[in-house]
Amino acid sequence: MEYLLQGQKKITMTHDSVSIVAAAHSPFGRLDGINLEDLIVKVTRDALADAAIDAAEIDALFLGHFNSGLVADGFAASLMLQADPQLRFKPATRCENACASGSAAIQAGINAIRSGAAELVLVVGAEKMTSNSTADVTRALSGAGYQHDEREAGLSFAQLFGQVAQQYAERYHSPLASMAAIAVKNHANAMSNPLAQMHRVMDFEHCNNISQSNPVIAQPLRLTDCSLISDGAAAVILASPRRARSMQRQVAIRAMTQVNDFLPLSSRDVLAFEGPQRAIHGAMREAGVTLGDLSFAEVHDCFTIAELLIYEAMGLAPKGEGHRALDDGTVRHGGRLPVNLSGGLKAKGHPVGATGVSMHALGFRQLIGQPIGLGVPRAEFGLLFNMGGMAVANYASVLQAVRA
Amino acid sequence: MEYLLQGQKKITMTHDSVSIVAAAHSPFGRLDGINLEDLIVKVTRDALADAAIDAAEIDALFLGHFNSGLVADGFAASLMLQADPQLRFKPATRCENACASGSAAIQAGINAIRSGAAELVLVVGAEKMTSNSTADVTRALSGAGYQHDEREAGLSFAQLFGQVAQQYAERYHSPLASMAAIAVKNHANAMSNPLAQMHRVMDFEHCNNISQSNPVIAQPLRLTDCSLISDGAAAVILASPRRARSMQRQVAIRAMTQVNDFLPLSSRDVLAFEGPQRAIHGAMREAGVTLGDLSFAEVHDCFTIAELLIYEAMGLAPKGEGHRALDDGTVRHGGRLPVNLSGGLKAKGHPVGATGVSMHALGFRQLIGQPIGLGVPRAEFGLLFNMGGMAVANYASVLQAVRA
Repeated sequence: MEYLLQGQKKITMTHDSVSIVAAAHSPFGRLDGINLEDLIVKVTRDALADAAIDAAEIDALFLGHFNSGLVADGFAASLMLQADPQLRFKPATRCENACASGSAAIQAGINAIRSGAAELVLVVGAEKMTSNSTADVTRALSGAGYQHDEREAGLSFAQLFGQVAQQYAERYHSPLASMAAIAVKNHANAMSNPLAQMHRVMDFEHCNNISQSNPVIAQPLRLTDCSLISDGAAAVILASPRRARSMQRQVAIRAMTQVNDFLPLSSRDVLAFEGPQRAIHGAMREAGVTLGDLSFAEVHDCFTIAELLIYEAMGLAPKGEGHRALDDGTVRHGGRLPVNLSGGLKAKGHPVGATGVSMHALGFRQLIGQPIGLGVPRAEFGLLFNMGGMAVANYASVLQAVRA
Repeated sequence: MEYLLQGQKKITMTHDSVSIVAAAHSPFGRLDGINLEDLIVKVTRDALADAAIDAAEIDALFLGHFNSGLVADGFAASLMLQADPQLRFKPATRCENACASGSAAIQAGINAIRSGAAELVLVVGAEKMTSNSTADVTRALSGAGYQHDEREAGLSFAQLFGQVAQQYAERYHSPLASMAAIAVKNHANAMSNPLAQMHRVMDFEHCNNISQSNPVIAQPLRLTDCSLISDGAAAVILASPRRARSMQRQVAIRAMTQVNDFLPLSSRDVLAFEGPQRAIHGAMREAGVTLGDLSFAEVHDCFTIAELLIYEAMGLAPKGEGHRALDDGTVRHGGRLPVNLSGGLKAKGHPVGATGVSMHALGFRQLIGQPIGLGVPRAEFGLLFNMGGMAVANYASVLQAVRA
């Protein structure tokens, strides 16, 4: 438990949080010849190996997976059991909250432990997307929009986020240059992440201009404003406080907050990003930290405009002024609060059901001092923000390093 | 907590179980002009009204929903929030375990309460099936089978359960007459259930013979051996022990056990029904009850052969002798342990994501002495068994009446 006493240094005491004690992460990208089951089995085995535990010790399993027509596997939870014969007869459940399905599975794992039902929980996030055409992927993802309003149904998420960028321009000023700067930053960060889907430096000129190689996808979003279609999986093992003490490494989940908003866009001011803001501040409050305590953040940049709005939701800048966090270097590698050191969904890739688990896996590695990609020296607290739909399912976590 | 002391009467003490404190249930059947959102909203409002609480008091919401291509709504959790503006910003999560998705949502609700994260939880199960052709429904449901073995992929569940009935005949003796008797019993029970999809007396002659009106669907299953394609939803409100004390009615969930088996049929002896057996006996053990303590059971008769195998998994009869539970009247209305007084999936209907929640809603009504349909006088304990896939996701619950 963390106590923040005014005018005193923080005192870290033996904590009662659920901890991450192991992680695994596949490469993200186009993984030909590898199906959903292969992805799930690989990270399950890798996570068990990373924890150096026997599969028999796992009490429960949760899978974050969106699907919505991407693969024929309509009932994927038990695919985790394929990793090890000793997983037979263990409870396995799929959790879905669109692109935040991975965080939904983490949350379910935390609840299972805190309820006393489990001591060790395996959480997998996985998605297989690239075996579909881009049109079919777009259709599957648009299933995460509201289907019962003809103005919304059938719109792609690029179109929806394009509308948000237009609203931003109307209410404040054009976000396009900031969006390009976010793409540049995240592509630069991904250069150090061996598991990222894209390893290509993008310059501001390229990202900020429409060209044959950077066409408009949905007004005003350009190709470089959009995250990728990816295959991939990640896994973490969660442990109770008691069980974590016997593990070699642990990172505490100080808080995890979930806030769902109404699905129809017509029922809310989308630009306000209220769900993300409530989730992020709820998690920070519960963890007893402020922005100044955070060493890094991994956030849901499904489109570059989303990352800009998340800066504002975090409180890094006032509404309409998110660009300041970029301009003054705050969110850049080496800045006061680097955002998406992994490359983000933009360049790391975005296998949707895997993304929330990926954030937790990378946060774990960062906080045990073994970052995958860019590192933050002596990182203590990390913020993760994962979002399903257009700010509909919002999950924020605060992780803390636990040092002996 | 229930203590069973040898040779003594049971002593019921203030319990620490999560309780069901309210329930709602739509009619099951072909509900034209009513979409998934309508179903979810209706039972959410009805459950809040049944509990006589304000929506603001709900701490978390869970949705059991299979989908797998049945509807375009790929991200349905937040549809629950449509029921009341005060549900905005509350956590809402979809849980999926094929035809046991409803129980997966109940289990998640129990964990949320036992973890301390919630005091009052709303759980909805819902499915909209009849707007699809039978072929499309069959295809959607077959997504709950193993997709990565060409001998299994693409087989319908009628074909899979047909194979099980054939194996039963080869290992023991023909189960066909018992299957017909199960259909007759469940259709008779459904006559008293106003929410059941079918209200039609079926005689044994009809069910046990192939005819133009009772054709073979998949060898050797006849039409009357198969459950129905249904629209429907159900909801329950769960409460912590502390919160339940202030409610007018409560039914304790003494135990809920989840057992997942391997998805591929080739990796196990399907006829052994090991997952169901472990789940049912695990729940009874945890609740401290034996078969003799149970007043009723609602079990997963997706096909009549499944109900026969569940008798054996429950221990009502030895393997291969499930017919005895029918022959001696045990499982019939008025018998020692009536099974599927509601009419079961066979006649009540089987909107797949709703089924597990429906069982809990009906169990609640039975144990507060207000049965929907046939009643059991002075019922104290009820067993519920809900199954996803071919004995893959298995959930058993033991409910107990709580009397002042």
